[in-house]
Amino acid sequence: MCERKTDYAFEMACSNIRYGAGVTREIGMDLQNMGARNVCLMTDRTLSQLPPVGVVLDSLTKHGVKYKIYEDVRVEPTDKSFKAAIDFAKQGHFDVYVAVGGGSVIDTCKAANLYASHPEAEFLDFVNAPIGKGKPITATLKPLIAVPTTAGTGSETTGVAIFDFENLKAKTGIANRALKPTLGMVDPLHTLHMPSRVAANSGFDVLCHALESFTALPYYLRSPCPSNPINRPAYQGSNPISDVWARHALKIVAKYLKRAVRDAGDVEARSSMHLASVFAGIGFGNAGVHLCHGMSYPIAGNVKTHRAKGYNVEHPIVPHGLSVVLTSPAVFAFTANMCPERHLEAAQILGTDVSSIKKDDAGRVLADTLRSFLYDLEVEDGLSSIGYTKEDIPSLVKGTIPQERVTKLSPRAHTEEDLTALFAASMKLY
Amino acid sequence: MCERKTDYAFEMACSNIRYGAGVTREIGMDLQNMGARNVCLMTDRTLSQLPPVGVVLDSLTKHGVKYKIYEDVRVEPTDKSFKAAIDFAKQGHFDVYVAVGGGSVIDTCKAANLYASHPEAEFLDFVNAPIGKGKPITATLKPLIAVPTTAGTGSETTGVAIFDFENLKAKTGIANRALKPTLGMVDPLHTLHMPSRVAANSGFDVLCHALESFTALPYYLRSPCPSNPINRPAYQGSNPISDVWARHALKIVAKYLKRAVRDAGDVEARSSMHLASVFAGIGFGNAGVHLCHGMSYPIAGNVKTHRAKGYNVEHPIVPHGLSVVLTSPAVFAFTANMCPERHLEAAQILGTDVSSIKKDDAGRVLADTLRSFLYDLEVEDGLSSIGYTKEDIPSLVKGTIPQERVTKLSPRAHTEEDLTALFAASMKLY
Repeated sequence: MCERKTDYAFEMACSNIRYGAGVTREIGMDLQNMGARNVCLMTDRTLSQLPPVGVVLDSLTKHGVKYKIYEDVRVEPTDKSFKAAIDFAKQGHFDVYVAVGGGSVIDTCKAANLYASHPEAEFLDFVNAPIGKGKPITATLKPLIAVPTTAGTGSETTGVAIFDFENLKAKTGIANRALKPTLGMVDPLHTLHMPSRVAANSGFDVLCHALESFTALPYYLRSPCPSNPINRPAYQGSNPISDVWARHALKIVAKYLKRAVRDAGDVEARSSMHLASVFAGIGFGNAGVHLCHGMSYPIAGNVKTHRAKGYNVEHPIVPHGLSVVLTSPAVFAFTANMCPERHLEAAQILGTDVSSIKKDDAGRVLADTLRSFLYDLEVEDGLSSIGYTKEDIPSLVKGTIPQERVTKLSPRAHTEEDLTALFAASMKLY
Repeated sequence: MCERKTDYAFEMACSNIRYGAGVTREIGMDLQNMGARNVCLMTDRTLSQLPPVGVVLDSLTKHGVKYKIYEDVRVEPTDKSFKAAIDFAKQGHFDVYVAVGGGSVIDTCKAANLYASHPEAEFLDFVNAPIGKGKPITATLKPLIAVPTTAGTGSETTGVAIFDFENLKAKTGIANRALKPTLGMVDPLHTLHMPSRVAANSGFDVLCHALESFTALPYYLRSPCPSNPINRPAYQGSNPISDVWARHALKIVAKYLKRAVRDAGDVEARSSMHLASVFAGIGFGNAGVHLCHGMSYPIAGNVKTHRAKGYNVEHPIVPHGLSVVLTSPAVFAFTANMCPERHLEAAQILGTDVSSIKKDDAGRVLADTLRSFLYDLEVEDGLSSIGYTKEDIPSLVKGTIPQERVTKLSPRAHTEEDLTALFAASMKLY
């Protein structure tokens, strides 16, 4: 069938997206149209007191849709918090799921739907190999409507659910097209409730989704070529379709992220970032991400005492977007020589004049562009400022190794020594 | 729910797309994975002798997939040819459909699948109002894999099936998200079999999909606002997501269409146009098209004697892409004053320096750009060159009126007198 060792095809899958200010007011009608009789509404304790959840509840009540609410989703979920949501879902015998929240809520809801539809499965069965067994999903999941309230994860468009595996102190996840929400209901009014630092950190996630999917190994260089199309992974490498999304998302980040962070009432900027999150999600959901995301999982998983401003949680966390962006200058300096044109184009979209820059300098120029962008947005000065020292690097490297599903999409091959150097170079940014 | 008269939301739906040179060789495995036991393969008599169908048949045989082949699809299908295919489908009790061909084949296969899944329905039940009843589709259709062999319709991405209603001498169709193929399998090698004029005409369809969806009435000006989201039409007006697709498709047309027409062996150009067709399809499939398409249906439906070069058919036809593009200079000169920036941007993407052009001249400039582009591609000199005279204009106008589903997306409102003037202005192009 396929004599080449590398893949020769890619597949684009994306959720249906409905976008509009106030669109969540319709959700009760959608659930009625779907014949829903027993809806599971998932959210977190902060959001359950805020308008995005209030609007959904009003609409459900108005249209006589029965539901149960689960508001114990953990921000930056863990295997334990996933399992608690799964138990709730199994006991509820729900016919439709609605997730109102950021990536943590949507990812938790995907996992709850998956394991409630596969009640015989063990938790590790569907978790990505090598940590889990990465088994194929054979059951038909229940419909899931995702209502994102942050502008970052793009989880409403993807088949990915990420969690922190506490024993391993590393994030991992479940990646399968079957997890894709049925509909992403993108209501830009919801993002007006994001605290400034949440807007910044979720925006960094968009930035890195776009940069990493744009610079990921091209699909035709990824190996092995699957012997059966069903084995083609969700993360397939950069391709002409994901490139369109990545470039476009990057342009919006360049134009609007600073405004969205500075002024929660800037509807144009916050709406635009909300759509950018969708665009970048469709892009990376098919192309994949690479080193910033792969290295972020142990950065978040090994957190000791860092308390993130703007996050109303009781445990120390490094917000996902922050854990991703802190290594970005070092990462793109490292990968640039494999596709310097793309690194220069990214720097240009982010506002740097690259007309007289040589290809050899592409990495330095994109890294400088990112440092300056992060400085303007008052991002913490590297890993050292969130509690890490040189002594932590071996465990950070160790935590990155199992992320091969992601890191193998780096355009440049890397050793443990390279990862060590990347973490070391990310200790201080400015 | 929605106090405004105009809609405030849009929804993006798209098929999964798999792209790669040689990707159709996998199709037998996909059908095996789906558990297909009785496949309906639809194509036309010309294609049934060519490699795109041969590759599919080889793959089915190799993987032991049982199938029946229907090769009587009519190029530019009619209600009669749709019904013949529907009868075949009803008798076959198929569990999966595969369409290998251009828009005619894919659209016919969508209709066959629809009515075989709704055996009690009358033919007009699902045809667009006002010609048909436009009833909602309640059955679950069988999976349909679309393998496009032309680079034009984008039918592999949309929920639209177009046919010629012979009694009315006008084209109409069925438009519903339920018709969207499960998977579009886009194999650029297939387009190497297109004769030069087929490449040109299908490329014009891409050009007009992009231009019309880019200039369509914005979604937030379209009325009425649906009282229930299930009533939001497939064609919703231009929106920030369709804009991305339209712009990108237009850039590819500008760069590659001439090369794709001149040299059937120019794999880069023909592959690029194949992807452009997908991009434009996702864009217009959600945003809609307007006057060029609305006016094209009577141009094609009233055909008298025109014999299109490069088409191996026994009946007179005006190929769809040609019927669409011949009015484009007149149409965009007419619509430009409603959104001159977009018309200028389109002219610029197509290669015209617009830096010193005033907004008032946007229509003239885009029209001139299109005329010059069509001249270079040796397009027939207007409606008069395909057999129409001034005397035919009333019946062309009459055939456009029922296309309101499409024409109402024109950014500029229009009367019958306006349509008369547009047809008159399209009699000669150069």
